[in-house]
Amino acid sequence: MSKKRMAMGEEGPDCSRIIAGFWRLRHWGISRNQLTDFVHECIDMGVTTFDHADIYGDYTCEQLFGDAVAGNNGLRGKMQLVTKCGIRLQNSETRPGISHQHYNTDYDYIIASAERSLKLLGTDRIDVLLIHRPDALMNADETARAFQQLKKDGKVLHFGVSNFTPSQVSLLQSRLPFQLVTNQIECSVLRIDPLHDGTLDQSQQMRMNPMAWSPLGGGSLFTGDGEKEKRLRNELAAIGDETGGYGIDQVALAWLLCHPSGIFPVVGSGKLARIQDAVASLGIALSREQWYRIWSASTGTPVP
Amino acid sequence: MSKKRMAMGEEGPDCSRIIAGFWRLRHWGISRNQLTDFVHECIDMGVTTFDHADIYGDYTCEQLFGDAVAGNNGLRGKMQLVTKCGIRLQNSETRPGISHQHYNTDYDYIIASAERSLKLLGTDRIDVLLIHRPDALMNADETARAFQQLKKDGKVLHFGVSNFTPSQVSLLQSRLPFQLVTNQIECSVLRIDPLHDGTLDQSQQMRMNPMAWSPLGGGSLFTGDGEKEKRLRNELAAIGDETGGYGIDQVALAWLLCHPSGIFPVVGSGKLARIQDAVASLGIALSREQWYRIWSASTGTPVP
Amino acid sequence: MSKKRMAMGEEGPDCSRIIAGFWRLRHWGISRNQLTDFVHECIDMGVTTFDHADIYGDYTCEQLFGDAVAGNNGLRGKMQLVTKCGIRLQNSETRPGISHQHYNTDYDYIIASAERSLKLLGTDRIDVLLIHRPDALMNADETARAFQQLKKDGKVLHFGVSNFTPSQVSLLQSRLPFQLVTNQIECSVLRIDPLHDGTLDQSQQMRMNPMAWSPLGGGSLFTGDGEKEKRLRNELAAIGDETGGYGIDQVALAWLLCHPSGIFPVVGSGKLARIQDAVASLGIALSREQWYRIWSASTGTPVP
Repeated sequence: MSKKRMAMGEEGPDCSRIIAGFWRLRHWGISRNQLTDFVHECIDMGVTTFDHADIYGDYTCEQLFGDAVAGNNGLRGKMQLVTKCGIRLQNSETRPGISHQHYNTDYDYIIASAERSLKLLGTDRIDVLLIHRPDALMNADETARAFQQLKKDGKVLHFGVSNFTPSQVSLLQSRLPFQLVTNQIECSVLRIDPLHDGTLDQSQQMRMNPMAWSPLGGGSLFTGDGEKEKRLRNELAAIGDETGGYGIDQVALAWLLCHPSGIFPVVGSGKLARIQDAVASLGIALSREQWYRIWSASTGTPVP
Repeated sequence: MSKKRMAMGEEGPDCSRIIAGFWRLRHWGISRNQLTDFVHECIDMGVTTFDHADIYGDYTCEQLFGDAVAGNNGLRGKMQLVTKCGIRLQNSETRPGISHQHYNTDYDYIIASAERSLKLLGTDRIDVLLIHRPDALMNADETARAFQQLKKDGKVLHFGVSNFTPSQVSLLQSRLPFQLVTNQIECSVLRIDPLHDGTLDQSQQMRMNPMAWSPLGGGSLFTGDGEKEKRLRNELAAIGDETGGYGIDQVALAWLLCHPSGIFPVVGSGKLARIQDAVASLGIALSREQWYRIWSASTGTPVP
Repeated sequence: MSKKRMAMGEEGPDCSRIIAGFWRLRHWGISRNQLTDFVHECIDMGVTTFDHADIYGDYTCEQLFGDAVAGNNGLRGKMQLVTKCGIRLQNSETRPGISHQHYNTDYDYIIASAERSLKLLGTDRIDVLLIHRPDALMNADETARAFQQLKKDGKVLHFGVSNFTPSQVSLLQSRLPFQLVTNQIECSVLRIDPLHDGTLDQSQQMRMNPMAWSPLGGGSLFTGDGEKEKRLRNELAAIGDETGGYGIDQVALAWLLCHPSGIFPVVGSGKLARIQDAVASLGIALSREQWYRIWSASTGTPVP
């Protein structure tokens, strides 16, 4: 059993444990009104935290979301907005001119990107702004200065990173007078590396809360032919039965929710039923033995 | 030349440098009286620190030891007892009910395991209690709370870990008001990874003292057909001759004893001659050149 | 565009960004007078920092350099001398007696080695002394004590390391009351590991400045048949054209000079034209997109 809401980081915003992600929003094929309804229904079921990035949908998804919530005056106070910056897409149709994909974490770039996100999302504040990818050219003093300016101006309330290694987190944190609240990483029963490579150890030590992208491991958990996928499907299905009739997707989420670092899974579906299923996974109480059965199904061997 | 006794950790107990391990005690095939004699003779030769774990011998070895030393009133004050908790064995005959091996580092579990060890070992205090394996579900606050309670109650005097990575050590240490005194790791001339993967760097930095399990690398050092084993046997034998007629097992132990992190090898033999040989290895003074000849025999190449 | 001079470390000496290295001095085939001229001309073009090691040229290069600058009284004040200690060469012709290569970072050894370097270089102070290779037997307390003594005596002004991992740097730094100013590592467009394995993250965090040895990756950048070398040559040449007609060696240096950790490349050529080319690379301003094109040419794939 996991709590439905939790602070992200020691100083961070109160967020819903299940976060709705808009990575593929452009491809959901829904109208503006349907998206408005989707957002309302998410909030009604307790999913109030929404994950964006400037680049999603070739730089279009923030605006689609902003348009859908525009004019709903009370809505902004009911939700927490996460977005990201730092990737410069190559071959973008909406923002052409970049022929080779790269990153930018310079002061001016971060400030400008955050201000653009504010405008497109139709809000006066971003709850959490993340650096999307580790930039080998990150000058941590400069990145930290941009964060501090955005915070001072009230444009961004909290900050985090995504896909950072522990040494990259340490570097950036060392320049900040406040705590990074999250490291959004790829983590699932199919990708357990963050549990033993130091990433989640650091998150727990710093009392950051990881966000997990691709928390179901992409489609391969359901359709993959590999031995690992088969082992996981069998074990997740068995434990779904043992715990009261849950689906393998729900047990896979519960496996993340159990972790003591306090992971927030980002569920990227436009189907309300999928969001509802994710919320229901908060009700699953896995025993340690069940949790390690899933771990062993992932690694292919019992723990020593 | 290595000292025969040394504090384990800055704040830890004064221990014998050679530690007798009871991993295989159940299979030594000796009577209670013979075990009593073995313990006395170890102490007589200066080996006063004894390494246990709740699970050794399918949860039987602590009691075998406890029975052997029961009633010897002065004996407890002459020895230091190390034991471990956290592994839940699958298919145990003595504690059935676990079908899939896993770990537990929760508050209640640690307290209960330590109290059971106290009872089985027939003592009122454990000198050093270790978490046996890194538990991916370790809630460091909770584990640290258990340690503090056990220390406050005088049931356990010092704490450590076993098989932990540096980030796992850092996490747990960050929650404790006292120093972890050891990380018991697999380390030998056949497994030198801890010397370059950061494990022993951290131990030295934190002034913890590593304990080395399988400090002779298991039987393969003596019988293995691999090139690495052959190179090591040749080099260890040559250096044994150069230093005054020591055996390859003794030179392999001296190689560990020389390391500046201050390693305590755990020798798991029930044969007094083997323990005596290990103690004699404290008398070997390896030159830096000899030490690196062994390193190179292990890696297969001279250092750059 | 990179500055021509910069402090090495927060507390370190003001150095030329391009450092002349004397690794192969013995094989340059130049006379003492020619070397004197070479040093003067380096200084005239702003290359005032010179990188040595006790072992270069089988322990002969420090003296060759010292002889060449002897008697030029004003010269010492115009240059910064870096040298290294800790490697004990096997099969040396000038210092025989070592049959197996190894390291030594003991107090007495470091003191003696630094004093010998002072004598051979013909100076009363070393600006920066480095431990040449990580010594698995490094007792950090002892190494730090040697550093403190040498500093107190004015014989060495600043200290660093070379080829150290982050955990090795942390260990040694933890024992010092002053900052290590550099970690001299192998780093180039052909070896970018330090940019993502934590090495340069640590340097930036600690405000150490890396020195890069083999900053052009050895000859293979120019002549290698591998796909990686070919990709890099093509991309470096293209960017050389875009930025105003620079050579691939110059763009490769500019790629290092751009990094926010503040890398000092060590150029090991005895040809003044090569040094001049390196200095000219300080004038190249790479865009982020150009920098990442080189990164991708090295890894073989665009960044995600």
